[in-house]
Amino acid sequence: MKKLFILLLLPCFVFAQSKDEKKILSILDSQTQAWNRGDFDGFMKGYLESDSLMYIGKSGVTYGFTATLNSYKRNYAGSDKMGQLRFDILHLKKLGKKHYLVVGKWFLKRNAGDVGGHYTLTFEKIKGQWVIIADHSS
Amino acid sequence: MKKLFILLLLPCFVFAQSKDEKKILSILDSQTQAWNRGDFDGFMKGYLESDSLMYIGKSGVTYGFTATLNSYKRNYAGSDKMGQLRFDILHLKKLGKKHYLVVGKWFLKRNAGDVGGHYTLTFEKIKGQWVIIADHSS
Repeated sequence: MKKLFILLLLPCFVFAQSKDEKKILSILDSQTQAWNRGDFDGFMKGYLESDSLMYIGKSGVTYGFTATLNSYKRNYAGSDKMGQLRFDILHLKKLGKKHYLVVGKWFLKRNAGDVGGHYTLTFEKIKGQWVIIADHSS
Repeated sequence: MKKLFILLLLPCFVFAQSKDEKKILSILDSQTQAWNRGDFDGFMKGYLESDSLMYIGKSGVTYGFTATLNSYKRNYAGSDKMGQLRFDILHLKKLGKKHYLVVGKWFLKRNAGDVGGHYTLTFEKIKGQWVIIADHSS
């Protein structure tokens, strides 16, 4: 009976997403698809195309869209290093009307050795489009 | 002449902080002071006292205020491991009326070996008080 109750609740939970949350999830999905076909530029479409973008990683803070793109290209050159990406979304938290905090896990299955960790993304809605303005990945 | 111009501008820049930004900076300052006198509970006053607090670190996501406090107490037990903390604030970004994104550096000077890295904090104004609701440190 408990199992049935959970099964009945599940579809409500799965679909209890706002339009904004669906959009953000679809961006993250597009990013993984782009990465998995070796398309760095497609992957970067999730990010704000501006010098104000911040990527915080093991090398500290990388400022700007172009520097972030170049860093990805440098660190993951070739399919052995790029591998296959998976995101597990742990939390979507609305911060007012125009911002979202997204916490998740990332995994790279690859010939150069699997790697993974966690990320905290800050999304902002700019001119009707949701984009990542800050990414802390570790 | 250029130097004079910079000197004249400097005080405007230094004081160009909103009331909210001053408050957030004073919280981060209180946190370092608490840490440096070995006061974990004082340090934790910067965080939201709730199960919804998220701390993302090298062990993944720690959920909740109590678990985060216990994790600090476990990982930095004793003055040799706790050392002296310094924060360097790199960015304060307003996200709507009730949220701020803070990116900075942390340093621990200690007998057990110096350590440091970067953090991304999400602050929320709850009942008139600014508190950290998510901390990604690496």
